[in-house]
Amino acid sequence: MDVISVIRTKRDKGELSPEQIDWVIDAYTRGEVADEQMSALAMAILLNGMNRVEIARWTAAMINSGERMNFAQLSRPTADKHSTGGVGDKITLPLAPIVAACGAAVPQLSGRGLGHTGGTLDKLESIPGWRALLSNEEMLDVLDSTGAVICAAGDGLAPADKKLYALRDVTGTVEAIPLIASSIMSKKIAEGTGSLVLDVKVGSGAFMKNIEDARELAATMVGLGTDHGVRTVALLTDMSTPLGLTAGNALEVRESVEVLAGGGPQDVVDLTLALAREMLDAAGLKDADPAKALADGSAMDVWRRMIAAQGGDPDAALPVAREQHVVHASESGVLTTMDAYAVGVAAWRLGAGRARKEDQVQAGAGIELHAKPGDRVTAGQRLMTLHTDTPEKFEYALEALNGRVFTSPEGTDFTPNPIVLGRIA
Amino acid sequence: MDVISVIRTKRDKGELSPEQIDWVIDAYTRGEVADEQMSALAMAILLNGMNRVEIARWTAAMINSGERMNFAQLSRPTADKHSTGGVGDKITLPLAPIVAACGAAVPQLSGRGLGHTGGTLDKLESIPGWRALLSNEEMLDVLDSTGAVICAAGDGLAPADKKLYALRDVTGTVEAIPLIASSIMSKKIAEGTGSLVLDVKVGSGAFMKNIEDARELAATMVGLGTDHGVRTVALLTDMSTPLGLTAGNALEVRESVEVLAGGGPQDVVDLTLALAREMLDAAGLKDADPAKALADGSAMDVWRRMIAAQGGDPDAALPVAREQHVVHASESGVLTTMDAYAVGVAAWRLGAGRARKEDQVQAGAGIELHAKPGDRVTAGQRLMTLHTDTPEKFEYALEALNGRVFTSPEGTDFTPNPIVLGRIA
Repeated sequence: MDVISVIRTKRDKGELSPEQIDWVIDAYTRGEVADEQMSALAMAILLNGMNRVEIARWTAAMINSGERMNFAQLSRPTADKHSTGGVGDKITLPLAPIVAACGAAVPQLSGRGLGHTGGTLDKLESIPGWRALLSNEEMLDVLDSTGAVICAAGDGLAPADKKLYALRDVTGTVEAIPLIASSIMSKKIAEGTGSLVLDVKVGSGAFMKNIEDARELAATMVGLGTDHGVRTVALLTDMSTPLGLTAGNALEVRESVEVLAGGGPQDVVDLTLALAREMLDAAGLKDADPAKALADGSAMDVWRRMIAAQGGDPDAALPVAREQHVVHASESGVLTTMDAYAVGVAAWRLGAGRARKEDQVQAGAGIELHAKPGDRVTAGQRLMTLHTDTPEKFEYALEALNGRVFTSPEGTDFTPNPIVLGRIA
Repeated sequence: MDVISVIRTKRDKGELSPEQIDWVIDAYTRGEVADEQMSALAMAILLNGMNRVEIARWTAAMINSGERMNFAQLSRPTADKHSTGGVGDKITLPLAPIVAACGAAVPQLSGRGLGHTGGTLDKLESIPGWRALLSNEEMLDVLDSTGAVICAAGDGLAPADKKLYALRDVTGTVEAIPLIASSIMSKKIAEGTGSLVLDVKVGSGAFMKNIEDARELAATMVGLGTDHGVRTVALLTDMSTPLGLTAGNALEVRESVEVLAGGGPQDVVDLTLALAREMLDAAGLKDADPAKALADGSAMDVWRRMIAAQGGDPDAALPVAREQHVVHASESGVLTTMDAYAVGVAAWRLGAGRARKEDQVQAGAGIELHAKPGDRVTAGQRLMTLHTDTPEKFEYALEALNGRVFTSPEGTDFTPNPIVLGRIA
């Protein structure tokens, strides 16, 4: 087996054999296949595609590159959720405690933000004392005692994916559906969950800009999960505008706690409950009532115990950015566009995200929205507040927003997108 | 400027801007763009192409990555030839002395063999004492005193190409016409020749397997040369069968000396004279007669002086391989196929070529043909003799030839390809 013949096969639009796939993933993990060879192969896959048989084998090879976890000793059925990433997507924070309060075990191995999309671990780290890094034993302890755990994935799960993801990030080969699907699913399957709900985002703030690509990605992932014995369902959800009214780390924790307290923006509540119902169904808990877990405070109880179990103080004041800048509406009418990508980039520039893996994020930085598409606005009214510790970045952040927020004349017929656009099982 | 946006532009079938091209070649040469990023870009170029404007700028950027030579102080016009590489292609050896004997200065910066194609420097190194490595001053001295020089290109010419070529070789990105054309032409233009004749090989033993690809490559290179003020002509020539009757280092030197002595196989003589005429025309020496330079011994005189000027002994006995194996015809008829690629691979396996850059070649190894397509053969007659110092490789070499040499029944109507298939100027 040699790597050039593998690269040539895909370059010339051929089908990779199971032996070629197993060999190239293993050899890359061991360092025998070099980064410059794998990136050429990744580009050929991006441009020439892989069929379902190839994607399944590629995913299996990545799972086999590392250890597998096992939740069989838990007394509760496991339910997991994965989002493909968006702007203001804090759903994991209220969702995990709600589903745990309904009787499932919710292991959420989460990531950090890169680019304009936020990361769940970055958000939770704005809570004083909270630790993302747990050993496998600590993770199982928190999960067993509180019903939910949100932490960083260990180095042992799918190391081939870890290496390949870092490579794709610097070689312009992220946006390949076969590679996105196998990356997500190899980690989720290695993690050992019994059921999985995928939140596949569609729109300017998501990887998938249109519904056709999102549907293809969702169907590919549902197929992979099902083939590996994981009950898998995908919801296609709107990411043309940010979720909720905040994008930023501490800002989103605050909004999540509002949801757990029975308030919060309607779109966040609706999507959280829709995903909770899917997770509970997939976990076999069809009679559970997630809305009740919100209303009776049991979800909030799980949240507080979960945060405390990882060293965090659920009652501590959250960090606030040193400077604020308010953007006002320049005309009256109906707000028709609040572009998710633009808001994500602006929040990133304010310090909520990182440009390189080794960068630090600002806990308090981000954007608070005072109106969403469909709302009536009056000239001079506050549209959004920008938060940062580095006020010299205000101008750079405002540049990203320029021309990406629209108000149409009063009387314009406008209906915002529904939050759930489709379902694939 | 960032490399990911450059990669994405080409990945998404866009046109690279002059600024993007200049920046990426310079940053790659300096090591700021990493190998894994350049290989992803090379794969995107291979699959999505570059237009003429992009190829011209890419070539110019590679020229600008290093030094340029200047032959203006020579009293004679310079004439250069480049072959895209084939099996048994020893043409440079008799050609350079012939053209020099006719009044041109012939600087031949040549390469080594890699894979199944031979390298001019490897061939000449089978002459006891001969040195491929000259300083720029030594090179100009030999050229000035003998009219011709064949030596290794210095490290200062187009260093971006040197780095990129080595990368393409290990990442399955060699076979891209824009990259092949810019690689060849950047070196030739930086070398400073006034005129250039390209020998673009077509057939199983060449990079270009079909005439359409060869024509596209030739036209691209002629355009690049012309745009840079180099009078450039290309001949498309047959490489479906080896050139002459030998493939191997010392074996090809012997055959070249036979041509210079007025003998040698007809196809080698014909192609050498056709290329000599093109070179002399392009150099403005339209009245020169290369056939006369062969007949009157003046080309042989230049050869002897050129070899001696680089430390070689033109009268020394050439190395002979330790073992021989003769292949006989199994049936009578007309020989219709003697596949160039198969003969090249077999000679390579016998030790005439190298698998990796750091390998040594055997001076005596190779293949001698006793018949060529169009010849009548009788069952039991010798078809070819295999030469090697490592007889354990005979079987491996014969495997490459298996089924790639055909004899058709007596009376079959068969005309071999002409040696020159086309001309582009």
